Amino acid sequence: MFKDTRLPTAREMDARDELKAFRDRFVFGDENMIYLDGNSLGRPPKETLTRISTMAGKEWGERLIRSWNDGWIEASERIGAKLAGLIGARPDEVIVADATSVNLFKLAVAALMDNPGRKKIVSDEMNFPSDLYILQGIADMLGNKHEICLAGSDDGIITAPEKIEALLDRDTALLTLTHTCFKSAFICDMKRLTQAAHRNGAFTLWDLSHSVGAMEIELNECNADLAVGCTYKYLNGGPGAPAFIYVRKDLQERISQPVWGWLGADNPFEFSLDYSPAGTIRRYQTGTPPILSLLAIEPGLDLHLEAGMEKLRRKSVLMTEYLVFLFDQLLHPLGFELGSPRDPEIRGSHVSIRHPEAYRINRAMIGSEPPAVKVIPDFRTPDNIRLGIAPLYTSFEEIYIALQRIREIVEGRDYERFSSERSIVT
Amino acid sequence: MFKDTRLPTAREMDARDELKAFRDRFVFGDENMIYLDGNSLGRPPKETLTRISTMAGKEWGERLIRSWNDGWIEASERIGAKLAGLIGARPDEVIVADATSVNLFKLAVAALMDNPGRKKIVSDEMNFPSDLYILQGIADMLGNKHEICLAGSDDGIITAPEKIEALLDRDTALLTLTHTCFKSAFICDMKRLTQAAHRNGAFTLWDLSHSVGAMEIELNECNADLAVGCTYKYLNGGPGAPAFIYVRKDLQERISQPVWGWLGADNPFEFSLDYSPAGTIRRYQTGTPPILSLLAIEPGLDLHLEAGMEKLRRKSVLMTEYLVFLFDQLLHPLGFELGSPRDPEIRGSHVSIRHPEAYRINRAMIGSEPPAVKVIPDFRTPDNIRLGIAPLYTSFEEIYIALQRIREIVEGRDYERFSSERSIVT
Repeated sequence: MFKDTRLPTAREMDARDELKAFRDRFVFGDENMIYLDGNSLGRPPKETLTRISTMAGKEWGERLIRSWNDGWIEASERIGAKLAGLIGARPDEVIVADATSVNLFKLAVAALMDNPGRKKIVSDEMNFPSDLYILQGIADMLGNKHEICLAGSDDGIITAPEKIEALLDRDTALLTLTHTCFKSAFICDMKRLTQAAHRNGAFTLWDLSHSVGAMEIELNECNADLAVGCTYKYLNGGPGAPAFIYVRKDLQERISQPVWGWLGADNPFEFSLDYSPAGTIRRYQTGTPPILSLLAIEPGLDLHLEAGMEKLRRKSVLMTEYLVFLFDQLLHPLGFELGSPRDPEIRGSHVSIRHPEAYRINRAMIGSEPPAVKVIPDFRTPDNIRLGIAPLYTSFEEIYIALQRIREIVEGRDYERFSSERSIVT
Repeated sequence: MFKDTRLPTAREMDARDELKAFRDRFVFGDENMIYLDGNSLGRPPKETLTRISTMAGKEWGERLIRSWNDGWIEASERIGAKLAGLIGARPDEVIVADATSVNLFKLAVAALMDNPGRKKIVSDEMNFPSDLYILQGIADMLGNKHEICLAGSDDGIITAPEKIEALLDRDTALLTLTHTCFKSAFICDMKRLTQAAHRNGAFTLWDLSHSVGAMEIELNECNADLAVGCTYKYLNGGPGAPAFIYVRKDLQERISQPVWGWLGADNPFEFSLDYSPAGTIRRYQTGTPPILSLLAIEPGLDLHLEAGMEKLRRKSVLMTEYLVFLFDQLLHPLGFELGSPRDPEIRGSHVSIRHPEAYRINRAMIGSEPPAVKVIPDFRTPDNIRLGIAPLYTSFEEIYIALQRIREIVEGRDYERFSSERSIVT
């Protein structure tokens, strides 16, 4: 597809980008910095900063408690309904609440309780560790009667669906996977694996954190049972913004999540002594949501809905293809290996590149000073640098400059002046 | 103590108030509005609005992912440590995380799992319903082997400690109570009840939501085991700001909360497949915290630490005493009954007043238009109007004017033009 590694080509592609106008809708604070970590923490839309200021100054500062009646109390459902439009779900099947890990806990327990005779939980070694920890905690809490079976990957990039299918049987209560793997960006086959789980009578629970906002997801079309995901990556909801929960309509009243907080009750403000769950997706809510962080999610969702997931995915694929093309030309000769699938059909919106000196190269990218451009990826142990494409605001030019900068760092051995002592997050 | 109901007296008391300067540190948007609902949603400190703006524009907008290394990742512990100073705990015994209901779930399960042979949970009918719902959900999740026993109150205002003590026995795993009752503001005797629970070998778990920031709390002094609480009432942390968890130091590694999210792991960024819990209060954290809502808590805590809880409590008591004095003079003759204890020693920082037309009177207070002053309390079913005193910013003059306004509404039957159809929150 790509033949030319020159900057003018990148600029031409930007000029032809049908979504290019969206870039102006985001905050760009530092013009000498290329941000390729929107897969971890998305940039703020400009509208979000305005929204936050209004929320804090007017809604909290002036309207105070009355704002709960003026839209706050319904916000978890309203924003969930918008989010549903990005993941192929009905508006009444999604609600925003709690952290992803807490939501995974709620839904996994709900699934296991619905089928107490079954003792097997199936997942994958490439799943996000927190998701596995949550399963381990549940098993411990329920008396260690459940067995957690993990499919392995041969190359650390792809888990063959056959390996997961081989673990499913009539003792399986739950299959839970991260839809797009956090390290390699490998996309699991949701339809095939959901069908396989259903053939065995098991629930499926998908973690969409690394997918949502970067690709089309068809929960209803795949007949997926349950899903969770975060809102602060491609959705640009802000650091630690509350996560979401999807429960297919026909399951909402059948299964029961165990954290019976008041906002999941049928009528929270009746203050009756006995819990009676809401008959809707609201029963998957727990306590009072963090309003500043919750409402900050909405403008980013609006941008995704305006752009359309089909176009966003098309641009994301074009960009990761371009990135892989440049990688082959510029970085592979320097000892890098691709840590993501080559087939864009099964690749999400970030590309992992692997190198024995990945950690120090990542430090050198972040630590670059003018005239060199600063490039911000993130690092995932042991040797992955993740380069994230956020199709709403990343440009081809940025990808070009970033890969040239990585080449420069490795060729000039700039990374050697950085310590290999790990910092916390990036 | 009070002899004079005139406005000049209120103004004199404001002039003598040693904490009066703190009022200027808060946002007052509408000068024609008296806000007596700081017990439900505190006003924003001015510094908090500045902090939010910096957080959104600079830390998120410009520093982006790097802000996790620049203070975000430690914020839950740092803010918890400050909060510890307000509740008589050690800095390493408190962390901010999740919603109050979720935290109560985590700690109640931890307590029950530590003592699987015991099947009784003791609480009180005046507990906040969400707390009871959480217990019911846990019992359901664990196979309905636990019995939840609730002490009753004779007058709906006070629960005699004897009634709770009578329920405690060697089968009791957990005593959990709200320290200050949400309707009546009755303060339970934490020391006595903790001793009673410990004599029976049970854990205590306190919900401090309606106490923290309004009175001195001595968790260590009382040898309390576990506590949770919210930060958006007297602490002014912002709507739905994340809650806190206290676990006494010697219990932190002994008990185990069941939601094993990655931020509770020993080394989250190692991304190992097996959960290994942090050896500190951090193991009570779960997923990524909502940063905007989390960091907004800090300036309010700083104000409380600066003012000092002893002075804040002293002012709060003086103010509720003044309010009760005015109530007796102005409102009792109009058919109101006091819904809070008369003894300030066992009364928190709000005063409930009860009237058969409480809901419509509350609507009329909120719906007042100039020249009448708008007064904002909240309503709690069936007949409570709660008048909250926030000692950092409420003035005696406001209390005086508010009670006169209530009198005016009832005498003039202004409330009759309001519907008795319930709005959602206030």
